[in-house]
Amino acid sequence: MKNALFITIEGPDGSGKTTVSKAICERLQKEGYLLQLTREPGGSKIAEQIRSVILDPDNTEMDARTEALLYAASRRQHLVDKVLPALEKGIAVVSERFVDSSLAYQGVARRIGMEAVWRINEFAIEGCLPDKTIYLDIDAETGLERIQKGRNYLDRLDQEEASFHDRVFKGYQEILTRFPERFIKVDAGQDIEKVVEDTYLVLKGLLDAQ
Amino acid sequence: MKNALFITIEGPDGSGKTTVSKAICERLQKEGYLLQLTREPGGSKIAEQIRSVILDPDNTEMDARTEALLYAASRRQHLVDKVLPALEKGIAVVSERFVDSSLAYQGVARRIGMEAVWRINEFAIEGCLPDKTIYLDIDAETGLERIQKGRNYLDRLDQEEASFHDRVFKGYQEILTRFPERFIKVDAGQDIEKVVEDTYLVLKGLLDAQ
Repeated sequence: MKNALFITIEGPDGSGKTTVSKAICERLQKEGYLLQLTREPGGSKIAEQIRSVILDPDNTEMDARTEALLYAASRRQHLVDKVLPALEKGIAVVSERFVDSSLAYQGVARRIGMEAVWRINEFAIEGCLPDKTIYLDIDAETGLERIQKGRNYLDRLDQEEASFHDRVFKGYQEILTRFPERFIKVDAGQDIEKVVEDTYLVLKGLLDAQ
Repeated sequence: MKNALFITIEGPDGSGKTTVSKAICERLQKEGYLLQLTREPGGSKIAEQIRSVILDPDNTEMDARTEALLYAASRRQHLVDKVLPALEKGIAVVSERFVDSSLAYQGVARRIGMEAVWRINEFAIEGCLPDKTIYLDIDAETGLERIQKGRNYLDRLDQEEASFHDRVFKGYQEILTRFPERFIKVDAGQDIEKVVEDTYLVLKGLLDAQ
C-alpha cells in the first residue's frame, strides 16, 4: 500500500512541533519535494468530531481508557482519510504526532501502561508504523514554560499539572529506548531557528535517501 | 469491586431487547428487587457524545475499525459512570447490549474479526464481563421485518442491507458457541408477551439464586 515515506514528528508539549513541521515542509515543498504535512486529526471530518469530544474542557469526568480509545479512533480515521491516500499516490507524509503520542500520554503519563495502549493502537494502525520518527527533544520544564508563555486559552490537556508533563517526557524517553532504530533525535532546547534548520536537514536527508 | 449481579441482554435488531428489558425490570423492581436497567450509552454524557458521532447519518465514510474503537470508548465510559457505581452499591445491573454486540456487529458483520475486536474491548472493560447474558434468539429475517414495520426514522446502522443483519445473526450464533456457560437463550420469535414472560422468569431465577 505504501509507495512513499511516512515520517512522524513527536515531542512533549512546548517542543515546537507545529512551528518546526510547518517551516520545514514549506521549505521542502518549495524545493520541489512531493510532501504532505498533516497533524492529527488533520481535517478529517470524523476525526475532528472525535477530537472535539476529547478536548472539550467540560468533559472532566473522562476516564483515561476512554480517552486512549478515542485517540486511537481518531488516529484510525485520519490514517484512512488522509495518510494512506497520499502514500498510495507516492506523496511522502509528515504527520505531527501519531502513535507514539498515545504511548507517552495515555500509556505512561496517564499510567494505563504502554503495552495495553500499544494493543489498541495496533488495532487502529494495522501495521502502518512510520518509517522514521523525528523526536524534538526537550526537557519537561522548558517545554512547560514555553506553553505557558505562548497561549491565552488552555484546553483540557494543557491544564494538567506539571507532574503530568514530567511523566510525558519520561514516557518519550522510554519509547526512544524501545525503538532506537526508528527515532532520530533533534535538540529542541536550542533557539527555534536552529531547531528548524536541524530538523530540515534530517528530513531532507531521509527524502534524498529514498 | 462487584457486589451484585451484572446481567446483559443481547440479540439482533428486532429481537425485542428494549421492550423486554423495560417490562421485566419494571416488574421486578415493583416486586422489590434492587435492580437498575441501563443501555449503552445509558445517559452518560461523554458516552452519549461518542454515540452521536457513531450514529450520525452523514458519517458514511466512517471506517469499520474507527466504529469499533468508538463503541469500545462509549462502553468504557458507560461502565465507569453507570454500571460499576451501581454494582459497588450492591444494586444488580441489567444492561441492554454490551461487549457481545461489538463482537457480533463489528467483529463478524463488519468482518474485522472477533479476536481483534475482543482485544480492544478487553482494554475497555478490564475483566468486567457480565455474570450472565440473556440472548433473545430470533432469525435475521424475522428481526429485520420487525424493525422495518416499527420505525419511521432509520439511523446509519439500520440502513445497512439485509446481508449485514444476516451476518449479525451468524455472529451471535458464533458467540453462543464460544461462551456456552455465560449465555441463556430465550426464544424471541414468540409473541412479545411470551418473550417478556420467559425472560422475566430467567432473570428472576438469577436474582433469587444470588
